This record gives sequence, C-alpha cells and structure tokens, in this order.
Amino acid sequence: MRAARFYDRGDIRIDEVEEPVVKSGQVGIEVAWCGICGTDLHEFLDGPIFCPSASHPNPITGEIPPVTLGHEMSGTVIALGEGVTDLKVGQHIVVEPYIVPQGEPTGPNDHYNLAEGSNFIGLGGNGGGLGEKISVDRRWVHPIPDNIPLDEAALIEPLSVGYHAVEKAELSPHSSILVVGAGPIGLLTAAVAKAQGHTVIISEPSSLRRQKASETGVAHYLINPIEEDVVGRVREITGHGVDAAFECSSVQTGLNACMDAIRMGGTIVVVAIWGKIAQMDMAKLVIKEAKLVGTIAYNNTHPKTIDLVASGKIKLDKFITSKIGLEDLIDKGFDTLIHHNETAVKILVSPSGKGL
Amino acid sequence: MRAARFYDRGDIRIDEVEEPVVKSGQVGIEVAWCGICGTDLHEFLDGPIFCPSASHPNPITGEIPPVTLGHEMSGTVIALGEGVTDLKVGQHIVVEPYIVPQGEPTGPNDHYNLAEGSNFIGLGGNGGGLGEKISVDRRWVHPIPDNIPLDEAALIEPLSVGYHAVEKAELSPHSSILVVGAGPIGLLTAAVAKAQGHTVIISEPSSLRRQKASETGVAHYLINPIEEDVVGRVREITGHGVDAAFECSSVQTGLNACMDAIRMGGTIVVVAIWGKIAQMDMAKLVIKEAKLVGTIAYNNTHPKTIDLVASGKIKLDKFITSKIGLEDLIDKGFDTLIHHNETAVKILVSPSGKGL
Repeated sequence: MRAARFYDRGDIRIDEVEEPVVKSGQVGIEVAWCGICGTDLHEFLDGPIFCPSASHPNPITGEIPPVTLGHEMSGTVIALGEGVTDLKVGQHIVVEPYIVPQGEPTGPNDHYNLAEGSNFIGLGGNGGGLGEKISVDRRWVHPIPDNIPLDEAALIEPLSVGYHAVEKAELSPHSSILVVGAGPIGLLTAAVAKAQGHTVIISEPSSLRRQKASETGVAHYLINPIEEDVVGRVREITGHGVDAAFECSSVQTGLNACMDAIRMGGTIVVVAIWGKIAQMDMAKLVIKEAKLVGTIAYNNTHPKTIDLVASGKIKLDKFITSKIGLEDLIDKGFDTLIHHNETAVKILVSPSGKGL
Repeated sequence: MRAARFYDRGDIRIDEVEEPVVKSGQVGIEVAWCGICGTDLHEFLDGPIFCPSASHPNPITGEIPPVTLGHEMSGTVIALGEGVTDLKVGQHIVVEPYIVPQGEPTGPNDHYNLAEGSNFIGLGGNGGGLGEKISVDRRWVHPIPDNIPLDEAALIEPLSVGYHAVEKAELSPHSSILVVGAGPIGLLTAAVAKAQGHTVIISEPSSLRRQKASETGVAHYLINPIEEDVVGRVREITGHGVDAAFECSSVQTGLNACMDAIRMGGTIVVVAIWGKIAQMDMAKLVIKEAKLVGTIAYNNTHPKTIDLVASGKIKLDKFITSKIGLEDLIDKGFDTLIHHNETAVKILVSPSGKGL
C-alpha cells in the first residue's frame, strides 16, 4: 500500500509500504480521508518536532524515520483484532490519534493529553492517516453515525481541538466570546462556541479569511482589526467585554486585543502555538482578575464533538476547500497551505484515491 | 482627633480633624491598630494612584485630597448608627475597607472587588485607619472573637488578600504550592495555604526574609534561589512539580520559576503588582495547559479569614515587627519599610497612642 512518510525536514516521500498487521485489541481501518494539519506543515518546514529523528527515536513507539504522517483521519473498519467485539467490519469511524505512555490512564477523567511523552499517531509513529490502511488500538477508535459523511468526519479531529479549547474557558450558558485569528483552528473553535449557543465575535485582518468565516457561518460578528477598534466594537456588542477570548493568532497585537476585550474576571484561552516570547501586562491581568489558560489537543472530547456534528449544529462541508490524492500531497497540499493560507482551510487527502 | 492624611506624592501630614459623624446604617469605631501597607508606600512614593487628586475626585466618595490613609484596621465599636442592631458598643471588630459603586451587589456570590470604580476606605476617602476614629457602613464591619488580640486583628486585612489568592488557585486538599517572594503578602499567602493543609515551599533570595519565613513557620521548605536550583528542588520535593505557584516577587526570574515549577495543568496565581511588562513563554503555557490567574484584594473572605485565625491555625503575632504612634508614621513607619524592607514585615500604628 502507499503512504506519505516523513524522513526529515523538507523530505516527505510517497512510499510503497507493507500493510499494517491488526494485533490483538486493535482495529484495522481503511482510511477514507485525512486532513493536512498545521502541525504537519511545521514538521515539513521546521521539523522534526513531534516526529522522531534517527538519534531521537520516539520513546513510546521506538520508531525512527521514516514515519507515516497524518492524524486527522476518517475511515471504515476492515478488520477486528482479537478481543474487539463492539465494532463491526464496514462501520465508519474516526481516530483519536494518541500515543500515550504504557500504563497511562485514559479514562473519562484523565488528562492523557498532558502525560509526559504523549505524542500522536501520524507524527510519533504507529502509522498515519496519510497511508491507505492503519491499525489502531480500540481505545482510540470512535464510531460515527451514518449522517456524518466520511469526508466531513476527517474534520472531527481538529474540531475536537476547538471543543477542548472551548471547554477550557469554562463558559456559562449564553456567554460571549471573541476569537482572534480565523485560521482553521480559530474557525473551528468559533464553530463549537456558536453551536453551544454562545455569542461569537471574530477578529481577523485578512478579508479572504473573514469571507470564509462569513461563508461558514461561525460568527455573529466579524471585525477587521486594521480598520476597526476591536475593543470598542466588542464593548458595543457586549457591554462590559467578552466572557472569554481565544488567542488563535500567535501575534502580540492579537494577545493584547484579547486582554483588553475580556470583561473583569474574564478568561483568555491560548490556542495558538507561539514560536516567540509574548509580552504580558501583568498589572492588567491582576486588576481584571483575568485568567490566561493554555490548551493543547484534547482529551475525551471526540464523542462530544461527534455528537455536536451529528446533531447538525455544525456543518463541516464548507471548511473543506479541496480534495487531493496522495501523489499531490506536497504540490497541491502543503504548498497551497504554505502559500495560499488565506483561502485554504482544510485540504483532504484520499490515500487510496478511491474518494476522488 | 488626629489623622494621617495624604495630600500629594511625598506629602502626608498628621492633622487635627473633626470626629466622623455616625450616620444611619453605620458603625462608629475607635481604631486600635492600623497596619501600613505596600499600597500606602506606593501612594507616598508614586501616588496618587488609588488616592484622589484635586483634578480627579474619587467618583464614588466625591473626595479630593487631603484624605485619611490606612485600610488595615482593627478597633472597638463606640457607636451604632440608626438601624444597626446586630453589634454592641465595646465589641471588637475589623473593617473590610471597601468603597463600591452605589447599587453594586455585595452579597456572598458577588465579585465586588471587580466592580468598575471600586476603591478602598483609607485610600479613596470615607476616612481611614490612620485616624483615631472612623465611621463605616455596617456591611464592611466584621466582629472578631475575644481570642484574637486587637493588634493581631489588624493583620486580618492583608491575610484576607492571601486567603483570596489561595482561593483563586482552586487547590484540591493536600496540594503542594510554591510561593516566590517572601515579602508580607508572600508570607501571609503561605500562612493561609499551610493552615489549610497544603505543602508549602517558599523561594526567597534574601536571607533575612527567609529567616522571617522560618520564624513565622509558614513554609515546610525554604529555597534560596541564588544558590539552589528552584525547579530541581521543587521536583525533588513534589515529584512532578507543584500544583500551584504564587508569584509574589514581580521579578521576571520569579515568574519563570513559577512556570517551570508547576506540574502539567498547574496554576500560577499572580499576587504581586507588576510595574513593568512581563515576558511570557506561551508555548510552555500551552504545552502544560497551565493557568495564569490574576488576583486583586478579596471578596467575602474576611469571615473565613477570621475563622482561620480564631481556630489558632495561623499565629499572627510573629508578623508584627514594630508598633508606633501616629507621629512616627513617616520616620519609623514608611522610612523603615522603604529602607529596611527585608526585616520589617508589618508595622502597626496606634492612632490614639493608647496601645503603646
């Protein structure tokens, strides 16, 4: 079968590889669709970060490059390992792509996203969604209902990131939120908050991204921070400021806007991965009794995210901006996301080419 | 009667003033002791900050300078205004020194410390603890039991700041905490956490302050960050890092130590008032899912703080480093705190001189 494999920074190849063995407790999956994530781009441009290197094998999987990429995947069950009795061949599923240390508890109250050494299928080893087939431990396989098409289901994983980010804000019902930055994660975070009944304001300088935010219907209000006073507009809309702001821009002015736009006692959730040190006005944090909260990936949010999509409260089709085959991964996938990231939201790959 | 009044930066005078009228709903109090707070020093050195100026009257009290200083006070009830029936003349009390906007709810679930325009008795007007007598609305008067001496009771107010800071960390029972900076507020925050059963580690570069921390018995472990590796020591003691760190230093290395010393998912409570912009490593905040939480003053914590002291779990006598009369306020009070702030913790003033 074919798989896109990470060898090193700037070196991703489409290889012919062995089909994975379905071990005891595992589920054999034929991948339908796999989204390309910003993290994949980071590995290509600046990696290895989550991926192993020859001198640093992944401590859990033991793998060194090449490793198969892709962690935003949907697919169909094609085989059941010994002891797996609660799924059926032919069933549609998505993968919660975790690699956690041996013995790490992964129950409903466990923060396995924070376990030391945790990594992701499709980055740290254990195969990936950018291969035609994959074997995954039952724990990480989530069935999806028939009313979620397999292409849209590939977006459950990044939507789960948004779901977890919204959870971290601990919002009361009918709160107001500001999302700063309407890249893929900003849009999906906004989508979750809106679906949950909160008032959503998005601030985004790119007109093309604002247009996408408008098309996807994830915001009640859209602000252009270059032409408008973000904090002034937020106060017009909310009175005393938003209950929570989501920093999805990794830009200093974005963080400042979050701090000024939240109400007294409000929360800023930092969703973006910052490559540089930020400036923090601690006096404002103190006087407002503000909270600045980090969020990374998710835990136990896939079932809730699937329910939200199945209920029809989030329409994922408009976030899919193109569909490509594995052979076009670099030219039409990575290059588009790097050079046209204002119009591309989610590019889906069909590893087998069957979906195209 | 005599009162210490703020006129302007560097200009505090001991004046002969009229005794306050006890209005309907108010309690007439003879002040026993009033502590000098870092905030008073700030007004003297850099003010007016909380104090009004001639061109900026306090919007709630309407007062302009001179205003009586002092907000950390204990005293005895000497008169009851119309409608006040649940206190007795002769009763010992402390004042929760709030000035809140008209109509602002101040019930048990209200965050009146965050109300726009909130200020403090003894800074924004309404008299102060550095006068012999004061009239205070019943809402802000808290009776204290006989087993708390009036001198120690003057420390209930700064202890309440520590109590609120510990509340903001939302600790589970038997947590571990790090306090960075053993100034008065750092010590009192540590005292509350230790009294509540948490494991307390203090990091403080000054040997005199560490000695005070040792004498007051507020910490299980004391670290000298100049000679020891704070994060290494914290990990030795706790395994995976502290559940919460309290930033009481307003120094960048202190904040960095907090970020590195907390466990995954841990909390940093910023108690110090920072005069400058801090550098924040957002990638660490995100990967740890850390929380950075501001805390300002207190709300509804005076009764709980009084109970903690009355129970004997906190001994406040060792925090009192000297007692002076009103006439010595600048020379033996402010000057000592400014120039000998490593040995002085809390200096108490007896406005009438009766306690000396």
